[in-house]
Amino acid sequence: MAITESVLFDGKVFSRKIDEETLGLSRRFYDIRGRKPRLAIIDPAQTSENSIYGRSKIKKGEKLSIECYYIRVPEPAGNKSPLAYIENLLMEAEPDGIIMERPLPPWISERDATQIVPDYLDVEGINLLNMGKNMAGEKTIIPATADACLQIIESLDGKFGKDVCIVNRTKVVGRPLALALINRNYTVTVCHSQTVDLKEKTSRAGIVVTATGKPEYLDSSYISKGAAVIDVGITRTEKGVVGDANFPDIQGKAGFITPVPGGVGPVTTSILMKNFMTIAIKRLEDRLNY
Amino acid sequence: MAITESVLFDGKVFSRKIDEETLGLSRRFYDIRGRKPRLAIIDPAQTSENSIYGRSKIKKGEKLSIECYYIRVPEPAGNKSPLAYIENLLMEAEPDGIIMERPLPPWISERDATQIVPDYLDVEGINLLNMGKNMAGEKTIIPATADACLQIIESLDGKFGKDVCIVNRTKVVGRPLALALINRNYTVTVCHSQTVDLKEKTSRAGIVVTATGKPEYLDSSYISKGAAVIDVGITRTEKGVVGDANFPDIQGKAGFITPVPGGVGPVTTSILMKNFMTIAIKRLEDRLNY
Repeated sequence: MAITESVLFDGKVFSRKIDEETLGLSRRFYDIRGRKPRLAIIDPAQTSENSIYGRSKIKKGEKLSIECYYIRVPEPAGNKSPLAYIENLLMEAEPDGIIMERPLPPWISERDATQIVPDYLDVEGINLLNMGKNMAGEKTIIPATADACLQIIESLDGKFGKDVCIVNRTKVVGRPLALALINRNYTVTVCHSQTVDLKEKTSRAGIVVTATGKPEYLDSSYISKGAAVIDVGITRTEKGVVGDANFPDIQGKAGFITPVPGGVGPVTTSILMKNFMTIAIKRLEDRLNY
Repeated sequence: MAITESVLFDGKVFSRKIDEETLGLSRRFYDIRGRKPRLAIIDPAQTSENSIYGRSKIKKGEKLSIECYYIRVPEPAGNKSPLAYIENLLMEAEPDGIIMERPLPPWISERDATQIVPDYLDVEGINLLNMGKNMAGEKTIIPATADACLQIIESLDGKFGKDVCIVNRTKVVGRPLALALINRNYTVTVCHSQTVDLKEKTSRAGIVVTATGKPEYLDSSYISKGAAVIDVGITRTEKGVVGDANFPDIQGKAGFITPVPGGVGPVTTSILMKNFMTIAIKRLEDRLNY
């Protein structure tokens, strides 16, 4: 019996095309505005993970002619609100888009975050108004990770059918991705930690998206022969960074796999920058077309 | 072989309990505020269907000590905006909640509607901010039809499992219901007109919610033995009002059925009034607790 080879997704190659579009937008921005587009990255939690991701965004920004401002926010003394402090720094930076690193520390409420990142500067699509637009089916930015999965799925061009099983129910992955896919005529099942008989659900879908952070749980018994597996999970283990999928085990059974690292990750960073440029250009054009 | 009897849901009995709670809230409102709660129903489209539903809401309001204001909005002359006209009438009525009848006529945009019905007066949960809260998993009002289905499903108390298949992807039924159910640990599949092999999806779920408006399409071949069928469809035919389900055919195979009429419909009206009182009381208490 011949061993079937799974098609291995290359996140770097895929994101190159996105980056080219972004670079085009950022050059157009420069031509119109006479300066580089400015992206403010606010980091209130300041975890070491945030620092790593922050650095990779700044590096990406440099390549794309985007000026990134990394704003560290210290915890305010006593009961003081961090709002005035952040707004002060933003006033100086005059950003064309804002990223607020998550998760938020306890001293910044979701309502504060919404105030700091208004809908028209919201690169991540997590302002409540933008979430409402997504819910209502209106055109809007959706969270980059969900968007990355969406773009990868759309690139499959129906070869794995239109049935998608998503193992994640958060507001940054499962929920927005489900709604975006439903809009595009996919039939979507949303699963989570409390799902009864998860295997039964995942093995029925032509496309499985998993984002649990449970290292390598998804083995070949979870998928049907020839299915596409989009792996959003990323966990640091003793043997290195791994995803939700048991890669060696599903190799051969899956028809398509996004590896970890090098799969959804780089696409997400590229999409984030593209989404930033999309809203930055939109505001510029709204002004020109007034 | 014995014929299995399907449990028939009684929407009138179910909604009686909801109405009692609403009446309690409206009396409490009167005690605190010294006047009855006021509900404004804005009807810009003025279809005959709207008139019928409008009358039933006013009748329901009378029973629940809620004052309903029915505001007919004529199409404005030329390019004039109807906003000022509606706001003028609302200023007089001073409502504690607003219902904007849908669908909107072409001369009222979704943005206008959002402006007329601010989030804190939004009885129907369709203001973009409230939709965003629903998306983000925050506590908020959800559209009454979705809420009615949710309450009925919750009343089944897990007897039909936790797998729900919803045949509808609109922002007033399928989407908010899916998110609300996911929040409550149900595993949800959202289907629609473009779903491939719909029967396969519906027949796998313990609970099927259908809201297509396709009269009597859902026959026994669509459901598994003993499944619960929540029928949101309502179509006027020559032989009377029917739902999405082929009632005689699924009788005996289904374990639980909501009939049409007399099922989801009356529950929806009751929920709408309860949701109105919930936001009216909330505003009152926010003021008292200032």
